[in-house]
Amino acid sequence: MGNMVKPFLQGRRLLETFLVLCLLVYVMDLPSAAKAAGKVNKHVWDVRYNYVSPDCYKKLAITINGLVPGPTIHAVEGETVVVQVTNSLVTENVAIHWHGIRQIGTPWSDGTESVTQCAIQPGDTFVYQFVVDKAGTYMYHAHYGMQLGDGIYGMIRVKAAHKEPFSYSSEHEILLSDWYHKNAYEHAIDLSSEPFVWVGEPNSVLIQGRAFACNEPGTEAGQCKEPNRKCSPFSLNVRPGRTIRLRIGSLTALSTLSFEIEDHEMTVVEADGNYVEPFKVKHLYLYSGETYSVLIKTSPKKDRSRNYWMVAKVVSRESSTPSGLAILNYNFNPPLALPPTDPPAGPHWNDTSDRIDQSVAVKAHHAYLNPPPKKSDRTIILLNTQNKIEGKVRWSLNNVSLNLPHTPYLIALKENLSYNTEAHPSTGGLYRLKFNSIVDVILQNANTMTPNVSETHPWHLHGHDFWVLGYGRGKFNMATDTASYNLTNPIMKNSVPLHPYGWTALRFRADNPGVWAFHCHIEFHFFLGMAVVFEEGIDQVGELPDSIMGCGETKPFVKP
Amino acid sequence: MGNMVKPFLQGRRLLETFLVLCLLVYVMDLPSAAKAAGKVNKHVWDVRYNYVSPDCYKKLAITINGLVPGPTIHAVEGETVVVQVTNSLVTENVAIHWHGIRQIGTPWSDGTESVTQCAIQPGDTFVYQFVVDKAGTYMYHAHYGMQLGDGIYGMIRVKAAHKEPFSYSSEHEILLSDWYHKNAYEHAIDLSSEPFVWVGEPNSVLIQGRAFACNEPGTEAGQCKEPNRKCSPFSLNVRPGRTIRLRIGSLTALSTLSFEIEDHEMTVVEADGNYVEPFKVKHLYLYSGETYSVLIKTSPKKDRSRNYWMVAKVVSRESSTPSGLAILNYNFNPPLALPPTDPPAGPHWNDTSDRIDQSVAVKAHHAYLNPPPKKSDRTIILLNTQNKIEGKVRWSLNNVSLNLPHTPYLIALKENLSYNTEAHPSTGGLYRLKFNSIVDVILQNANTMTPNVSETHPWHLHGHDFWVLGYGRGKFNMATDTASYNLTNPIMKNSVPLHPYGWTALRFRADNPGVWAFHCHIEFHFFLGMAVVFEEGIDQVGELPDSIMGCGETKPFVKP
Repeated sequence: MGNMVKPFLQGRRLLETFLVLCLLVYVMDLPSAAKAAGKVNKHVWDVRYNYVSPDCYKKLAITINGLVPGPTIHAVEGETVVVQVTNSLVTENVAIHWHGIRQIGTPWSDGTESVTQCAIQPGDTFVYQFVVDKAGTYMYHAHYGMQLGDGIYGMIRVKAAHKEPFSYSSEHEILLSDWYHKNAYEHAIDLSSEPFVWVGEPNSVLIQGRAFACNEPGTEAGQCKEPNRKCSPFSLNVRPGRTIRLRIGSLTALSTLSFEIEDHEMTVVEADGNYVEPFKVKHLYLYSGETYSVLIKTSPKKDRSRNYWMVAKVVSRESSTPSGLAILNYNFNPPLALPPTDPPAGPHWNDTSDRIDQSVAVKAHHAYLNPPPKKSDRTIILLNTQNKIEGKVRWSLNNVSLNLPHTPYLIALKENLSYNTEAHPSTGGLYRLKFNSIVDVILQNANTMTPNVSETHPWHLHGHDFWVLGYGRGKFNMATDTASYNLTNPIMKNSVPLHPYGWTALRFRADNPGVWAFHCHIEFHFFLGMAVVFEEGIDQVGELPDSIMGCGETKPFVKP
Repeated sequence: MGNMVKPFLQGRRLLETFLVLCLLVYVMDLPSAAKAAGKVNKHVWDVRYNYVSPDCYKKLAITINGLVPGPTIHAVEGETVVVQVTNSLVTENVAIHWHGIRQIGTPWSDGTESVTQCAIQPGDTFVYQFVVDKAGTYMYHAHYGMQLGDGIYGMIRVKAAHKEPFSYSSEHEILLSDWYHKNAYEHAIDLSSEPFVWVGEPNSVLIQGRAFACNEPGTEAGQCKEPNRKCSPFSLNVRPGRTIRLRIGSLTALSTLSFEIEDHEMTVVEADGNYVEPFKVKHLYLYSGETYSVLIKTSPKKDRSRNYWMVAKVVSRESSTPSGLAILNYNFNPPLALPPTDPPAGPHWNDTSDRIDQSVAVKAHHAYLNPPPKKSDRTIILLNTQNKIEGKVRWSLNNVSLNLPHTPYLIALKENLSYNTEAHPSTGGLYRLKFNSIVDVILQNANTMTPNVSETHPWHLHGHDFWVLGYGRGKFNMATDTASYNLTNPIMKNSVPLHPYGWTALRFRADNPGVWAFHCHIEFHFFLGMAVVFEEGIDQVGELPDSIMGCGETKPFVKP
């Protein structure tokens, strides 16, 4: 090492080389399981501004290597993924969350600002490192302020090292998002205003980062002759007569979507990285934060004379946002040749029953059952309400609206910074769970402040998959509703909807040492306080890396 | 103190109270001079986004307490100014520079990100504290990225405790700026693009944060019946028959301005906080970073039947930007009653001679002479060029374009972080000056990359006033041009223009321990590397406060 010191001090490039070497040394020191799985799956990302025009409107986006969506991470289960993120935003910080990855043994790599790390400052390089221990479809996105909505998101595809309970000849990804022409700063102003200013409906729905616009403005898709090539829609090329796996995920800032492919039924086979007892749908509802794999069968050769619409429609809100459109392109047709039909209209926006039916239909595959413990040690009921706090509209759980602290919870709790209690009165948003205990969470919906309105909330838990025990309508009844729990073949997920005026019951084992956010995945609701934080086994968390420090009360924790 | 600990740990409000108490203890420990001067001049600022519409276009600005310009600091010479800045930007950092304040003994309060401090993170509160040791007109503004252009600036008025060499019956401030509808992020993208995208001319010129728009769009000011009251212009109320002091400053992002008041001659009496041998002008040229005090005589009572135009016109560039207009409002006229005349057309944009004449005319007041040393110990010639570096358009001094390091120079040099040499090869932008030595700087202009174009550069030095020894045309000749230096009554300033194809010679004593930026005050040129850094007496700098640490290699320097 003595020889290293001088050059290391001379140039950034040498500094980087050194860091990579350190990293390799660190990786080689990983538990043997990961080592056995072998490969380090490395990515070098630069987070920077870039203009993008997915729907023909030029917007300054936050991009990864210039792209929206960012680059897909292709990995194999058991691999160690290393993502070296350099913040090239000029004056703005960033943090990236690996949505659905449980971060077993690496809670500091969860990427949740104010929960697991300080945001990455401009000019800094932060190295995320974690094992993708389970095959499936996952995602990543910014987890700081409302940056997600400005385009910093993408997919993580973890291939199975084992045989899966279905087969297919090719696989493709479809990331869904909604898109505002206003940026995160403007949204923050609106949402913090008195009187309250709601951000409104998104301008577009994007399919794999693209919207559809007709070359002749104002023409309906069904009558359109040619798409606007300046912002041409996503076109997915398929061969006829095949079974194809689509990995579909939703990272909307607000919207619940119904995804549908004209004349192509979908068989659901995976949800949030867990195998599903297959069932067929015409349209697939996706709540922000969810992923599904579906299989489609493409028409045999004689029917391949045309393309088909793919549609992502906003549901659960009466939205002015036009449906996102993309093209299923049969091989040898021109990729942007428009289908000769009107795009499917999709389900009615407020058909809640249809959505609940799908939620209930998602069950664990019979050959991959991992039944839950029969009983829980603790039940936490979280009443979801919109309310006014100090004159401002906020979202709350049990009337506590979370103000994210400037000292991340993980560090505060691990290092016993009692200061941290400031943001969390004893009745507050921090729940300390007994390690290895079984915890039930009942999400209970309610009215918003607008009479006779109850919204859909997509809830996402970090650090865990949970069993989905059941959904119900009205007020949860502890005496009777627990009897209806599915304890036989509940699906495990990391994201789940809470339907209007309904309840959703979850169960998980608090066996992952760390501090984990549990929140509504609507960016604006999270910003307005709709989150709680779970701590479990903090004493078993290993030494925190210096790289997550540097904000709030953690500044003195960076060691020379 | 023992009793303090527990409540301090319980609430932010208590934490703040504690900080203020600490501050007072610190202030009470200041050198006796400041203590004698007495008062602590305290300000509590919240930096946050806000929509503003100074020219009827709604833009998201970075504001102080919601305002653009920010609140004026009114102080008396000798006072200690304390500004407690809380960063309420959601994901963005900030730093504020006190332009013209020499920060004697407090180099860490200069507010220059990457030179004297790490930027203030969201949620953090930073306390700037410095003595305003000299009466005069000063300013403040963001010194991080290109945030200045998004509205974070204001004035500092330091009243004399002594008798001044002129008298007046009232005083008023007029802060000039230019205004882009695009924001700093968009500018950063443009300026970093390949091929290069220039930001273009500003959309408006603002006088005291306001532009003029006629209520009937498209109508010339002279024909306009009524201003648009949604973005009504600045109106300055004066009484007839008085002598009035106007403190005028320019914090444009790009533009050189000519300021003029219809039918009112101005007598220049102060420049950058130094008394000027009075001279009269019809129009006053201001380069970004400059301040002047002028005296005007208002008409006697019989002539007070109308208002008059105030005009700020872009010069030194052939600009598409309409001149900024405001109203000199004679008492008892309606404030927004428009003058019955066309606004003065102002000087021709490329009358360089007229501008040089004014530069030369600014001399020290005969009763306040502080002549420079006859000789210097060192001469630094800085050739100002635009050039391409690694495919990107940059601005350079002696072909070195400064990449601001992520570890502030002050900390790196004080703490002997040899790493810091990384960003500054030996030929680079850091100049280490012998303490107390006399330094001459010759700014030498040249062609830009566009043939036959040479731009005006407003140069600003932190931590010092310098003597302005002279201006010349063409290539500086060390043998002959030094003979033309004004060593008798040169004005002292902190900001000075370098005229097209010309040179400007400065002299200063390197007697202020610290590290000081010297740069072109055009935001875009500074962003593109047009800066150097002077270090002097680093060994005499006192212990650096923890509060400036926390970025780059300084993270481990925050003490528990």
